[in-house]
Amino acid sequence: MTDKTPLDPARATAIRENFARQGLMTHLGATLETLETGLCTISMPFKPELTQQRGFFHAGGLSSIADSAGGYAGLTMHPTGDDVLTVEFKLNLLNPAQGARLLTEGHVIKAGRTLTICRLEVFAETEGSRTHCATGQQTLIRVPAA
Amino acid sequence: MTDKTPLDPARATAIRENFARQGLMTHLGATLETLETGLCTISMPFKPELTQQRGFFHAGGLSSIADSAGGYAGLTMHPTGDDVLTVEFKLNLLNPAQGARLLTEGHVIKAGRTLTICRLEVFAETEGSRTHCATGQQTLIRVPAA
Amino acid sequence: MTDKTPLDPARATAIRENFARQGLMTHLGATLETLETGLCTISMPFKPELTQQRGFFHAGGLSSIADSAGGYAGLTMHPTGDDVLTVEFKLNLLNPAQGARLLTEGHVIKAGRTLTICRLEVFAETEGSRTHCATGQQTLIRVPAA
Amino acid sequence: MTDKTPLDPARATAIRENFARQGLMTHLGATLETLETGLCTISMPFKPELTQQRGFFHAGGLSSIADSAGGYAGLTMHPTGDDVLTVEFKLNLLNPAQGARLLTEGHVIKAGRTLTICRLEVFAETEGSRTHCATGQQTLIRVPAA
Repeated sequence: MTDKTPLDPARATAIRENFARQGLMTHLGATLETLETGLCTISMPFKPELTQQRGFFHAGGLSSIADSAGGYAGLTMHPTGDDVLTVEFKLNLLNPAQGARLLTEGHVIKAGRTLTICRLEVFAETEGSRTHCATGQQTLIRVPAA
Repeated sequence: MTDKTPLDPARATAIRENFARQGLMTHLGATLETLETGLCTISMPFKPELTQQRGFFHAGGLSSIADSAGGYAGLTMHPTGDDVLTVEFKLNLLNPAQGARLLTEGHVIKAGRTLTICRLEVFAETEGSRTHCATGQQTLIRVPAA
Repeated sequence: MTDKTPLDPARATAIRENFARQGLMTHLGATLETLETGLCTISMPFKPELTQQRGFFHAGGLSSIADSAGGYAGLTMHPTGDDVLTVEFKLNLLNPAQGARLLTEGHVIKAGRTLTICRLEVFAETEGSRTHCATGQQTLIRVPAA
Repeated sequence: MTDKTPLDPARATAIRENFARQGLMTHLGATLETLETGLCTISMPFKPELTQQRGFFHAGGLSSIADSAGGYAGLTMHPTGDDVLTVEFKLNLLNPAQGARLLTEGHVIKAGRTLTICRLEVFAETEGSRTHCATGQQTLIRVPAA
Protein backbone atom coordinates (compact mmCIF):
# COMPACT_ATOMS: atom_id res chain seq x y z
CA MET A 1 0.00 0.00 0.00
CA THR A 2 3.06 2.30 0.38
CA ASP A 3 3.33 2.78 -3.37
CA LYS A 4 -0.07 4.43 -3.65
CA THR A 5 -0.31 7.98 -4.91
CA PRO A 6 -1.45 10.42 -2.21
CA LEU A 7 -4.82 11.93 -2.94
CA ASP A 8 -5.30 15.62 -3.54
CA PRO A 9 -6.28 16.97 -0.08
CA ALA A 10 -9.46 18.66 -1.36
CA ARG A 11 -10.52 15.38 -2.99
CA ALA A 12 -9.82 13.48 0.23
CA THR A 13 -11.88 15.98 2.22
CA ALA A 14 -14.81 15.63 -0.18
CA ILE A 15 -14.69 11.84 0.10
CA ARG A 16 -14.53 11.95 3.90
CA GLU A 17 -17.59 14.23 3.87
CA ASN A 18 -19.37 11.72 1.64
CA PHE A 19 -18.51 8.98 4.18
CA ALA A 20 -19.83 11.16 7.02
CA ARG A 21 -23.22 11.26 5.25
CA GLN A 22 -23.55 7.46 5.45
CA GLY A 23 -25.77 7.10 8.49
CA LEU A 24 -25.08 3.38 8.62
CA MET A 25 -21.32 3.86 9.08
CA THR A 26 -21.92 6.05 12.15
CA HIS A 27 -24.54 3.63 13.48
CA LEU A 28 -22.08 0.73 13.20
CA GLY A 29 -19.23 2.74 14.74
CA ALA A 30 -17.09 2.59 11.60
CA THR A 31 -14.18 4.97 10.91
CA LEU A 32 -12.66 5.78 7.53
CA GLU A 33 -8.92 5.25 8.06
CA THR A 34 -6.57 5.30 5.08
CA LEU A 35 -7.57 6.99 1.83
CA GLU A 36 -5.19 6.86 -1.11
CA THR A 37 -5.64 6.67 -4.85
CA GLY A 38 -7.29 3.31 -5.39
CA LEU A 39 -7.32 2.33 -1.72
CA CYS A 40 -9.63 2.87 1.24
CA THR A 41 -9.56 1.19 4.64
CA ILE A 42 -12.31 1.29 7.27
CA SER A 43 -12.17 0.03 10.85
CA MET A 44 -15.01 -1.02 13.16
CA PRO A 45 -14.45 -1.87 16.84
CA PHE A 46 -16.34 -4.76 18.36
CA LYS A 47 -19.56 -4.09 20.22
CA PRO A 48 -22.44 -6.43 21.10
CA GLU A 49 -24.67 -4.52 18.65
CA LEU A 50 -22.62 -5.99 15.78
CA THR A 51 -22.90 -9.68 16.60
CA GLN A 52 -24.42 -12.79 15.10
CA GLN A 53 -25.85 -15.66 17.14
CA ARG A 54 -22.44 -16.90 18.38
CA GLY A 55 -21.14 -13.52 19.51
CA PHE A 56 -18.80 -12.95 16.55
CA PHE A 57 -19.14 -10.02 14.16
CA HIS A 58 -22.19 -10.60 11.95
CA ALA A 59 -21.35 -11.02 8.26
CA GLY A 60 -23.73 -8.16 7.56
CA GLY A 61 -21.77 -5.55 9.48
CA LEU A 62 -18.58 -6.92 7.98
CA SER A 63 -20.03 -6.64 4.48
CA SER A 64 -21.29 -3.12 5.22
CA ILE A 65 -17.81 -1.76 5.84
CA ALA A 66 -16.33 -3.89 3.04
CA ASP A 67 -18.87 -2.45 0.60
CA SER A 68 -18.12 1.09 1.73
CA ALA A 69 -14.35 0.57 1.59
CA GLY A 70 -14.63 -0.62 -2.00
CA GLY A 71 -16.95 2.24 -2.88
CA TYR A 72 -14.62 4.91 -1.52
CA ALA A 73 -11.57 3.27 -3.09
CA GLY A 74 -13.44 3.51 -6.38
CA LEU A 75 -14.46 7.10 -5.73
CA THR A 76 -10.81 8.14 -5.46
CA MET A 77 -10.45 7.32 -9.18
CA HIS A 78 -13.05 9.83 -10.32
CA PRO A 79 -13.24 13.66 -10.36
CA THR A 80 -14.82 15.59 -7.49
CA GLY A 81 -18.58 15.71 -7.87
CA ASP A 82 -18.88 12.19 -9.24
CA ASP A 83 -20.39 9.51 -7.08
CA VAL A 84 -20.38 5.71 -7.33
CA LEU A 85 -23.04 3.10 -6.63
CA THR A 86 -22.51 -0.59 -5.97
CA VAL A 87 -23.66 -2.81 -8.84
CA GLU A 88 -22.85 -6.08 -7.08
CA PHE A 89 -20.49 -7.62 -4.61
CA LYS A 90 -19.54 -11.10 -3.47
CA LEU A 91 -17.82 -12.10 -0.25
CA ASN A 92 -16.31 -15.37 0.90
CA LEU A 93 -16.14 -15.67 4.67
CA LEU A 94 -12.85 -17.40 5.46
CA ASN A 95 -12.64 -17.45 9.25
CA PRO A 96 -14.85 -16.46 12.20
CA ALA A 97 -14.89 -12.65 12.46
CA GLN A 98 -13.79 -12.56 16.06
CA GLY A 99 -11.56 -9.88 17.57
CA ALA A 100 -11.27 -6.42 19.05
CA ARG A 101 -11.99 -4.79 15.72
CA LEU A 102 -12.47 -5.43 12.02
CA LEU A 103 -10.34 -3.71 9.42
CA THR A 104 -11.44 -3.80 5.81
CA GLU A 105 -9.52 -2.80 2.71
CA GLY A 106 -11.00 -1.83 -0.66
CA HIS A 107 -8.49 -2.06 -3.51
CA VAL A 108 -9.27 -0.88 -7.05
CA ILE A 109 -8.35 -3.59 -9.54
CA LYS A 110 -9.59 -1.76 -12.61
CA ALA A 111 -11.13 1.68 -12.99
CA GLY A 112 -12.96 2.15 -16.27
CA ARG A 113 -14.98 5.06 -17.54
CA THR A 114 -18.25 3.48 -16.42
CA LEU A 115 -17.39 0.50 -14.18
CA THR A 116 -14.80 0.04 -11.47
CA ILE A 117 -13.84 -3.36 -10.06
CA CYS A 118 -12.49 -3.69 -6.51
CA ARG A 119 -11.09 -6.41 -4.35
CA LEU A 120 -12.29 -6.41 -0.75
CA GLU A 121 -10.34 -7.86 2.18
CA VAL A 122 -11.48 -8.04 5.80
CA PHE A 123 -9.29 -8.77 8.82
CA ALA A 124 -10.10 -9.23 12.50
CA GLU A 125 -7.45 -7.72 14.74
CA THR A 126 -6.71 -8.24 18.43
CA GLU A 127 -3.53 -6.83 19.99
CA GLY A 128 -1.27 -7.33 17.03
CA SER A 129 -2.72 -10.65 15.86
CA ARG A 130 -4.59 -10.56 12.60
CA THR A 131 -7.00 -13.06 11.01
CA HIS A 132 -8.10 -12.92 7.40
CA CYS A 133 -11.90 -13.09 7.75
CA ALA A 134 -13.22 -12.43 4.28
CA THR A 135 -12.22 -11.79 0.69
CA GLY A 136 -14.47 -10.36 -1.95
CA GLN A 137 -15.04 -8.64 -5.26
CA GLN A 138 -17.18 -5.66 -6.09
CA THR A 139 -18.42 -3.87 -9.20
CA LEU A 140 -19.18 -0.14 -8.97
CA ILE A 141 -20.87 2.16 -11.47
CA ARG A 142 -19.87 5.79 -11.77
CA VAL A 143 -22.57 8.43 -11.42
CA PRO A 144 -21.14 11.55 -13.06
CA ALA A 145 -21.71 14.92 -11.38
CA ALA A 146 -25.08 16.36 -12.39
CA MET B 1 -44.71 -19.31 -0.75
CA THR B 2 -48.12 -20.71 0.15
CA ASP B 3 -47.03 -24.24 -0.67
CA LYS B 4 -44.39 -24.29 2.04
CA THR B 5 -44.61 -26.82 4.81
CA PRO B 6 -45.29 -25.22 8.21
CA LEU B 7 -42.43 -25.63 10.62
CA ASP B 8 -42.72 -27.60 13.81
CA PRO B 9 -43.56 -24.93 16.45
CA ALA B 10 -40.70 -25.93 18.76
CA ARG B 11 -38.29 -25.66 15.84
CA ALA B 12 -39.67 -22.25 14.91
CA THR B 13 -39.27 -21.05 18.49
CA ALA B 14 -35.66 -22.22 18.60
CA ILE B 15 -34.90 -20.39 15.36
CA ARG B 16 -36.57 -17.20 16.57
CA GLU B 17 -34.45 -17.40 19.72
CA ASN B 18 -31.35 -17.79 17.56
CA PHE B 19 -32.40 -14.65 15.64
CA ALA B 20 -32.91 -12.78 18.92
CA ARG B 21 -29.26 -13.48 19.80
CA GLN B 22 -28.05 -11.60 16.69
CA GLY B 23 -27.18 -8.23 18.19
CA LEU B 24 -26.89 -6.70 14.75
CA MET B 25 -30.51 -7.49 13.84
CA THR B 26 -31.75 -5.60 16.91
CA HIS B 27 -29.35 -2.74 16.26
CA LEU B 28 -30.65 -2.38 12.69
CA GLY B 29 -34.28 -2.66 13.80
CA ALA B 30 -34.90 -5.87 11.85
CA THR B 31 -37.81 -8.23 12.55
CA LEU B 32 -38.04 -11.89 11.62
CA GLU B 33 -41.41 -12.19 9.85
CA THR B 34 -42.33 -15.41 8.05
CA LEU B 35 -40.62 -18.68 8.91
CA GLU B 36 -41.51 -21.79 6.95
CA THR B 37 -39.61 -24.83 5.79
CA GLY B 38 -37.07 -23.44 3.37
CA LEU B 39 -38.22 -19.82 3.67
CA CYS B 40 -37.50 -16.90 5.96
CA THR B 41 -38.46 -13.25 5.54
CA ILE B 42 -37.08 -10.31 7.50
CA SER B 43 -38.27 -6.70 7.46
CA MET B 44 -36.41 -3.51 8.38
CA PRO B 45 -38.12 -0.10 8.56
CA PHE B 46 -36.31 2.94 7.26
CA LYS B 47 -34.37 5.09 9.70
CA PRO B 48 -31.56 7.60 9.08
CA GLU B 49 -29.13 5.26 10.85
CA LEU B 50 -29.43 2.87 7.88
CA THR B 51 -28.55 5.22 5.03
CA GLN B 52 -25.80 5.65 2.49
CA GLN B 53 -24.62 9.03 1.20
CA ARG B 54 -27.78 9.72 -0.82
CA GLY B 55 -30.25 8.91 1.93
CA PHE B 56 -31.29 5.50 0.59
CA PHE B 57 -30.83 2.26 2.52
CA HIS B 58 -27.11 1.39 2.54
CA ALA B 59 -26.30 -1.84 0.71
CA GLY B 60 -24.66 -3.06 3.91
CA GLY B 61 -27.83 -3.02 5.99
CA LEU B 62 -29.69 -4.56 3.10
CA SER B 63 -27.12 -7.33 2.82
CA SER B 64 -27.21 -7.86 6.59
CA ILE B 65 -30.88 -8.80 6.58
CA ALA B 66 -30.53 -10.71 3.29
CA ASP B 67 -27.70 -12.78 4.78
CA SER B 68 -29.74 -13.51 7.92
CA ALA B 69 -32.86 -14.40 5.93
CA GLY B 70 -30.91 -16.93 3.91
CA GLY B 71 -29.25 -18.29 7.01
CA TYR B 72 -32.54 -18.87 8.82
CA ALA B 73 -34.19 -20.32 5.73
CA GLY B 74 -31.30 -22.77 5.65
CA LEU B 75 -31.58 -23.49 9.34
CA THR B 76 -35.19 -24.65 8.90
CA MET B 77 -33.84 -27.60 6.91
CA HIS B 78 -31.74 -29.01 9.75
CA PRO B 79 -32.54 -30.62 13.10
CA THR B 80 -32.77 -28.55 16.30
CA GLY B 81 -29.35 -27.95 17.77
CA ASP B 82 -27.64 -27.55 14.41
CA ASP B 83 -26.44 -24.15 13.36
CA VAL B 84 -25.39 -22.75 9.98
CA LEU B 85 -22.64 -20.33 8.98
CA THR B 86 -22.40 -18.32 5.78
CA VAL B 87 -19.69 -19.56 3.42
CA GLU B 88 -20.23 -16.84 0.82
CA PHE B 89 -22.89 -14.67 -0.69
CA LYS B 90 -23.28 -12.43 -3.70
CA LEU B 91 -25.81 -9.66 -4.25
CA ASN B 92 -26.75 -7.66 -7.33
CA LEU B 93 -28.30 -4.32 -6.48
CA LEU B 94 -31.05 -3.74 -9.01
CA ASN B 95 -32.71 -0.50 -7.98
CA PRO B 96 -32.16 2.20 -5.33
CA ALA B 97 -33.23 0.83 -1.94
CA GLN B 98 -35.64 3.62 -1.18
CA GLY B 99 -38.88 3.20 0.72
CA ALA B 100 -40.62 2.92 4.06
CA ARG B 101 -39.09 -0.48 4.74
CA LEU B 102 -37.06 -3.27 3.22
CA LEU B 103 -38.35 -6.81 3.07
CA THR B 104 -35.95 -9.62 2.30
CA GLU B 105 -36.68 -13.23 1.47
CA GLY B 106 -34.33 -16.18 1.85
CA HIS B 107 -35.36 -19.21 -0.23
CA VAL B 108 -33.59 -22.56 0.01
CA ILE B 109 -32.71 -23.80 -3.49
CA LYS B 110 -30.89 -26.91 -2.36
CA ALA B 111 -30.28 -28.32 1.10
CA GLY B 112 -27.49 -30.87 1.22
CA ARG B 113 -25.95 -32.70 4.13
CA THR B 114 -23.11 -30.20 4.40
CA LEU B 115 -23.97 -27.23 2.17
CA THR B 116 -27.21 -25.35 1.60
CA ILE B 117 -27.72 -22.92 -1.29
CA CYS B 118 -30.22 -20.06 -1.00
CA ARG B 119 -31.61 -17.39 -3.23
CA LEU B 120 -31.96 -13.97 -1.65
CA GLU B 121 -34.45 -11.30 -2.78
CA VAL B 122 -34.82 -7.81 -1.35
CA PHE B 123 -37.74 -5.45 -1.91
CA ALA B 124 -38.35 -1.84 -0.85
CA GLU B 125 -41.96 -1.25 0.11
CA THR B 126 -43.93 1.98 0.51
CA GLU B 127 -47.71 1.92 0.97
CA GLY B 128 -48.43 -0.98 -1.30
CA SER B 129 -45.81 -0.24 -3.94
CA ARG B 130 -42.89 -2.60 -4.12
CA THR B 131 -39.51 -2.30 -5.84
CA HIS B 132 -37.16 -5.21 -6.41
CA CYS B 133 -33.90 -3.84 -4.95
CA ALA B 134 -31.55 -6.79 -4.93
CA THR B 135 -31.19 -10.42 -5.89
CA GLY B 136 -28.53 -12.74 -4.57
CA GLN B 137 -27.18 -16.20 -3.89
CA GLN B 138 -25.74 -17.64 -0.73
CA THR B 139 -23.90 -20.78 0.33
CA LEU B 140 -24.29 -21.98 3.93
CA ILE B 141 -22.40 -24.68 5.81
CA ARG B 142 -24.09 -26.76 8.47
CA VAL B 143 -22.55 -26.88 11.93
CA PRO B 144 -23.96 -30.01 13.57
CA ALA B 145 -25.00 -29.84 17.22
CA ALA B 146 -21.99 -30.43 19.49
CA MET C 1 -42.03 -18.83 -19.98
CA THR C 2 -45.27 -18.79 -21.99
CA ASP C 3 -46.01 -15.20 -21.00
CA LYS C 4 -42.96 -13.88 -22.80
CA THR C 5 -43.38 -11.48 -25.68
CA PRO C 6 -42.35 -12.99 -29.02
CA LEU C 7 -39.35 -11.29 -30.56
CA ASP C 8 -39.53 -9.41 -33.82
CA PRO C 9 -38.40 -12.02 -36.40
CA ALA C 10 -35.68 -9.78 -37.86
CA ARG C 11 -34.32 -9.21 -34.37
CA ALA C 12 -34.37 -12.95 -33.66
CA THR C 13 -32.51 -13.63 -36.90
CA ALA C 14 -29.83 -11.08 -36.05
CA ILE C 15 -29.34 -12.64 -32.61
CA ARG C 16 -29.10 -16.14 -34.04
CA GLU C 17 -26.47 -14.89 -36.48
CA ASN C 18 -24.55 -13.40 -33.55
CA PHE C 19 -24.71 -16.79 -31.81
CA ALA C 20 -23.44 -18.50 -34.99
CA ARG C 21 -20.33 -16.28 -34.82
CA GLN C 22 -19.39 -17.70 -31.40
CA GLY C 23 -16.82 -20.30 -32.39
CA LEU C 24 -16.92 -21.78 -28.89
CA MET C 25 -20.62 -22.63 -29.09
CA THR C 26 -20.06 -24.65 -32.28
CA HIS C 27 -16.96 -26.30 -30.79
CA LEU C 28 -18.95 -27.39 -27.71
CA GLY C 29 -21.90 -28.57 -29.84
CA ALA C 30 -24.33 -26.04 -28.35
CA THR C 31 -27.62 -25.06 -29.98
CA LEU C 32 -29.59 -21.89 -29.39
CA GLU C 33 -33.12 -23.13 -28.67
CA THR C 34 -35.78 -20.69 -27.42
CA LEU C 35 -35.40 -16.97 -27.95
CA GLU C 36 -38.03 -14.66 -26.52
CA THR C 37 -37.96 -11.17 -25.08
CA GLY C 38 -35.86 -11.54 -21.95
CA LEU C 39 -35.29 -15.27 -22.33
CA CYS C 40 -32.80 -17.48 -24.13
CA THR C 41 -32.23 -21.21 -23.76
CA ILE C 42 -29.27 -23.20 -25.07
CA SER C 43 -28.82 -26.97 -25.15
CA MET C 44 -25.62 -29.03 -25.30
CA PRO C 45 -25.64 -32.83 -25.76
CA PHE C 46 -23.18 -34.93 -23.80
CA LYS C 47 -19.91 -35.93 -25.44
CA PRO C 48 -16.63 -37.07 -23.89
CA GLU C 49 -14.98 -33.80 -25.03
CA LEU C 50 -17.10 -31.96 -22.43
CA THR C 51 -16.15 -33.91 -19.32
CA GLN C 52 -14.33 -33.31 -16.08
CA GLN C 53 -12.25 -35.95 -14.29
CA ARG C 54 -15.27 -38.06 -13.22
CA GLY C 55 -16.95 -38.15 -16.60
CA PHE C 56 -19.66 -35.59 -15.83
CA PHE C 57 -20.07 -32.35 -17.74
CA HIS C 58 -17.20 -30.01 -16.77
CA ALA C 59 -18.36 -26.86 -14.99
CA GLY C 60 -16.54 -24.88 -17.65
CA GLY C 61 -18.67 -26.09 -20.54
CA LEU C 62 -21.75 -25.65 -18.39
CA SER C 63 -20.74 -22.08 -17.58
CA SER C 64 -19.98 -21.39 -21.25
CA ILE C 65 -23.54 -22.05 -22.33
CA ALA C 66 -24.96 -20.39 -19.22
CA ASP C 67 -22.95 -17.24 -19.95
CA SER C 68 -24.13 -17.23 -23.59
CA ALA C 69 -27.77 -17.84 -22.63
CA GLY C 70 -27.69 -14.86 -20.30
CA GLY C 71 -25.95 -12.73 -22.89
CA TYR C 72 -28.52 -13.46 -25.59
CA ALA C 73 -31.42 -13.03 -23.19
CA GLY C 74 -29.97 -9.60 -22.45
CA LEU C 75 -29.45 -8.83 -26.11
CA THR C 76 -33.18 -9.30 -26.79
CA MET C 77 -33.80 -6.18 -24.67
CA HIS C 78 -31.77 -3.86 -26.89
CA PRO C 79 -32.19 -2.53 -30.45
CA THR C 80 -30.61 -4.30 -33.42
CA GLY C 81 -26.98 -3.34 -33.82
CA ASP C 82 -26.29 -3.19 -30.09
CA ASP C 83 -24.15 -5.85 -28.52
CA VAL C 84 -23.61 -6.90 -24.90
CA LEU C 85 -20.51 -8.02 -23.02
CA THR C 86 -20.39 -9.94 -19.76
CA VAL C 87 -19.23 -7.84 -16.82
CA GLU C 88 -19.31 -10.70 -14.33
CA PHE C 89 -21.14 -13.88 -13.51
CA LYS C 90 -21.40 -16.26 -10.58
CA LEU C 91 -22.58 -19.85 -10.59
CA ASN C 92 -23.44 -22.25 -7.79
CA LEU C 93 -23.15 -25.88 -8.81
CA LEU C 94 -26.02 -27.70 -7.13
CA ASN C 95 -25.80 -31.27 -8.38
CA PRO C 96 -23.46 -33.33 -10.61
CA ALA C 97 -23.99 -32.31 -14.24
CA GLN C 98 -24.71 -35.80 -15.47
CA GLY C 99 -27.15 -36.65 -18.25
CA ALA C 100 -27.81 -36.90 -21.97
CA ARG C 101 -27.72 -33.13 -22.37
CA LEU C 102 -27.54 -29.84 -20.53
CA LEU C 103 -30.19 -27.18 -20.98
CA THR C 104 -29.49 -23.69 -19.74
CA GLU C 105 -31.86 -20.76 -19.37
CA GLY C 106 -30.92 -17.08 -19.25
CA HIS C 107 -33.66 -14.89 -17.75
CA VAL C 108 -33.46 -11.10 -17.69
CA ILE C 109 -34.19 -9.83 -14.18
CA LYS C 110 -33.61 -6.17 -14.93
CA ALA C 111 -32.66 -4.42 -18.16
CA GLY C 112 -31.29 -0.95 -17.62
CA ARG C 113 -29.91 1.54 -20.10
CA THR C 114 -26.33 0.47 -19.39
CA LEU C 115 -26.46 -2.74 -17.33
CA THR C 116 -28.64 -5.82 -17.57
CA ILE C 117 -28.91 -8.42 -14.81
CA CYS C 118 -29.80 -12.03 -15.61
CA ARG C 119 -30.51 -15.18 -13.69
CA LEU C 120 -28.95 -18.34 -15.09
CA GLU C 121 -30.31 -21.84 -14.56
CA VAL C 122 -28.79 -25.09 -15.80
CA PHE C 123 -30.50 -28.47 -15.95
CA ALA C 124 -29.23 -31.94 -16.91
CA GLU C 125 -31.83 -33.93 -18.81
CA THR C 126 -32.08 -37.64 -19.56
CA GLU C 127 -35.25 -39.09 -21.07
CA GLY C 128 -37.71 -36.89 -19.30
CA SER C 129 -35.91 -36.67 -15.98
CA ARG C 130 -34.42 -33.33 -15.10
CA THR C 131 -31.84 -32.31 -12.48
CA HIS C 132 -31.17 -28.74 -11.46
CA CYS C 133 -27.37 -28.54 -11.84
CA ALA C 134 -26.54 -24.88 -11.39
CA THR C 135 -28.00 -21.49 -10.60
CA GLY C 136 -26.31 -18.20 -11.24
CA GLN C 137 -26.38 -14.47 -11.73
CA GLN C 138 -24.83 -12.37 -14.44
CA THR C 139 -24.24 -8.68 -15.14
CA LEU C 140 -24.05 -7.51 -18.76
CA ILE C 141 -23.02 -4.17 -20.19
CA ARG C 142 -24.60 -2.82 -23.35
CA VAL C 143 -22.32 -1.85 -26.22
CA PRO C 144 -24.38 0.51 -28.40
CA ALA C 145 -24.17 0.18 -32.18
CA ALA C 146 -21.19 2.11 -33.54
CA MET D 1 4.89 -17.50 -6.53
CA THR D 2 8.56 -18.30 -5.86
CA ASP D 3 7.91 -18.92 -2.20
CA LYS D 4 5.65 -21.88 -2.87
CA THR D 5 6.56 -25.31 -1.56
CA PRO D 6 7.35 -27.81 -4.33
CA LEU D 7 4.88 -30.65 -4.51
CA ASP D 8 5.81 -34.23 -3.84
CA PRO D 9 6.50 -35.67 -7.35
CA ALA D 10 4.10 -38.60 -6.91
CA ARG D 11 1.38 -36.16 -5.87
CA ALA D 12 2.11 -33.95 -8.87
CA THR D 13 1.92 -36.95 -11.20
CA ALA D 14 -1.44 -38.00 -9.77
CA ILE D 15 -2.81 -34.49 -10.24
CA ARG D 16 -1.56 -34.27 -13.82
CA GLU D 17 -3.25 -37.60 -14.51
CA ASN D 18 -6.47 -36.21 -13.06
CA PHE D 19 -6.13 -33.21 -15.40
CA ALA D 20 -5.58 -35.54 -18.37
CA ARG D 21 -8.95 -37.17 -17.62
CA GLN D 22 -10.76 -33.84 -18.15
CA GLY D 23 -11.98 -34.26 -21.72
CA LEU D 24 -12.88 -30.58 -21.88
CA MET D 25 -9.32 -29.42 -21.22
CA THR D 26 -8.04 -31.45 -24.19
CA HIS D 27 -10.93 -30.26 -26.36
CA LEU D 28 -10.11 -26.63 -25.56
CA GLY D 29 -6.36 -27.19 -26.10
CA ALA D 30 -5.46 -26.36 -22.50
CA THR D 31 -2.15 -27.34 -20.86
CA LEU D 32 -1.47 -27.67 -17.16
CA GLU D 33 1.69 -25.60 -16.64
CA THR D 34 2.90 -24.86 -13.10
CA LEU D 35 1.82 -27.01 -10.18
CA GLU D 36 2.98 -26.09 -6.69
CA THR D 37 1.46 -26.36 -3.25
CA GLY D 38 -1.52 -24.02 -3.42
CA LEU D 39 -0.91 -22.91 -7.00
CA CYS D 40 -1.83 -24.17 -10.46
CA THR D 41 -1.50 -22.40 -13.80
CA ILE D 42 -3.10 -23.46 -17.09
CA SER D 43 -2.49 -22.03 -20.55
CA MET D 44 -4.72 -22.10 -23.63
CA PRO D 45 -3.53 -20.87 -27.05
CA PHE D 46 -5.93 -18.93 -29.22
CA LYS D 47 -7.93 -20.76 -31.87
CA PRO D 48 -11.14 -19.78 -33.69
CA GLU D 49 -12.98 -22.58 -31.86
CA LEU D 50 -12.62 -20.58 -28.62
CA THR D 51 -14.17 -17.28 -29.71
CA GLN D 52 -17.21 -15.20 -28.91
CA GLN D 53 -19.04 -13.05 -31.45
CA ARG D 54 -16.26 -10.46 -31.74
CA GLY D 55 -13.42 -12.92 -32.23
CA PHE D 56 -12.01 -12.64 -28.70
CA PHE D 57 -11.74 -15.60 -26.33
CA HIS D 58 -15.26 -16.49 -25.11
CA ALA D 59 -15.74 -15.99 -21.39
CA GLY D 60 -16.83 -19.63 -21.21
CA GLY D 61 -13.48 -21.05 -22.33
CA LEU D 62 -11.74 -18.59 -20.07
CA SER D 63 -13.85 -19.65 -17.12
CA SER D 64 -13.28 -23.32 -17.96
CA ILE D 65 -9.53 -23.07 -17.48
CA ALA D 66 -9.92 -20.71 -14.51
CA ASP D 67 -12.22 -23.22 -12.81
CA SER D 68 -9.77 -26.06 -13.45
CA ALA D 69 -6.77 -24.02 -12.27
CA GLY D 70 -8.52 -23.29 -8.99
CA GLY D 71 -9.60 -26.90 -8.63
CA TYR D 72 -6.08 -28.27 -9.10
CA ALA D 73 -4.57 -25.62 -6.85
CA GLY D 74 -7.02 -26.81 -4.21
CA LEU D 75 -6.25 -30.44 -4.88
CA THR D 76 -2.57 -29.87 -4.03
CA MET D 77 -3.65 -29.20 -0.44
CA HIS D 78 -5.18 -32.65 0.10
CA PRO D 79 -3.77 -36.20 0.30
CA THR D 80 -3.53 -38.42 -2.77
CA GLY D 81 -6.84 -40.12 -3.47
CA ASP D 82 -8.93 -37.13 -2.47
CA ASP D 83 -10.76 -35.18 -5.11
CA VAL D 84 -12.37 -31.74 -5.12
CA LEU D 85 -15.55 -30.43 -6.71
CA THR D 86 -16.45 -26.82 -7.43
CA VAL D 87 -19.17 -25.47 -5.15
CA GLU D 88 -19.35 -22.07 -6.83
CA PHE D 89 -17.24 -19.52 -8.60
CA LYS D 90 -17.53 -15.91 -9.66
CA LEU D 91 -15.54 -14.07 -12.31
CA ASN D 92 -15.26 -10.40 -13.17
CA LEU D 93 -14.18 -9.82 -16.75
CA LEU D 94 -11.84 -6.83 -16.70
CA ASN D 95 -10.61 -6.45 -20.27
CA PRO D 96 -11.26 -8.10 -23.64
CA ALA D 97 -9.64 -11.55 -23.68
CA GLN D 98 -7.63 -10.94 -26.81
CA GLY D 99 -4.17 -12.34 -27.45
CA ALA D 100 -2.07 -15.29 -28.55
CA ARG D 101 -2.95 -17.29 -25.46
CA LEU D 102 -4.69 -17.13 -22.10
CA LEU D 103 -2.87 -17.97 -18.89
CA THR D 104 -4.89 -18.57 -15.76
CA GLU D 105 -3.69 -18.89 -12.19
CA GLY D 106 -5.50 -20.60 -9.33
CA HIS D 107 -4.24 -19.53 -5.89
CA VAL D 108 -5.43 -21.14 -2.66
CA ILE D 109 -6.48 -18.44 -0.19
CA LYS D 110 -7.65 -20.81 2.50
CA ALA D 111 -7.66 -24.59 2.66
CA GLY D 112 -9.98 -25.98 5.29
CA ARG D 113 -10.88 -29.54 6.15
CA THR D 114 -14.04 -29.40 4.04
CA LEU D 115 -13.90 -26.22 1.96
CA THR D 116 -11.08 -24.54 0.07
CA ILE D 117 -11.26 -20.97 -1.24
CA CYS D 118 -9.23 -19.89 -4.27
CA ARG D 119 -8.53 -16.70 -6.11
CA LEU D 120 -8.55 -16.97 -9.89
CA GLU D 121 -6.65 -14.66 -12.23
CA VAL D 122 -6.67 -14.75 -16.04
CA PHE D 123 -4.22 -12.99 -18.34
CA ALA D 124 -4.07 -12.67 -22.14
CA GLU D 125 -0.52 -12.80 -23.43
CA THR D 126 0.95 -11.79 -26.79
CA GLU D 127 4.72 -11.67 -27.30
CA GLY D 128 5.64 -10.43 -23.87
CA SER D 129 2.69 -8.11 -23.35
CA ARG D 130 0.15 -9.16 -20.78
CA THR D 131 -3.40 -7.99 -20.08
CA HIS D 132 -5.33 -8.81 -16.92
CA CYS D 133 -8.57 -10.21 -18.34
CA ALA D 134 -10.42 -11.58 -15.36
CA THR D 135 -10.32 -11.98 -11.60
CA GLY D 136 -12.43 -14.39 -9.63
CA GLN D 137 -13.13 -16.38 -6.51
CA GLN D 138 -13.99 -20.03 -6.12
CA THR D 139 -15.19 -22.35 -3.39
CA LEU D 140 -14.23 -26.04 -3.58
CA ILE D 141 -15.45 -28.98 -1.52
CA ARG D 142 -13.16 -31.88 -0.71
CA VAL D 143 -14.30 -35.38 -1.65
CA PRO D 144 -12.24 -37.73 0.53
CA ALA D 145 -10.86 -40.90 -1.02
CA ALA D 146 -13.48 -43.69 -0.95
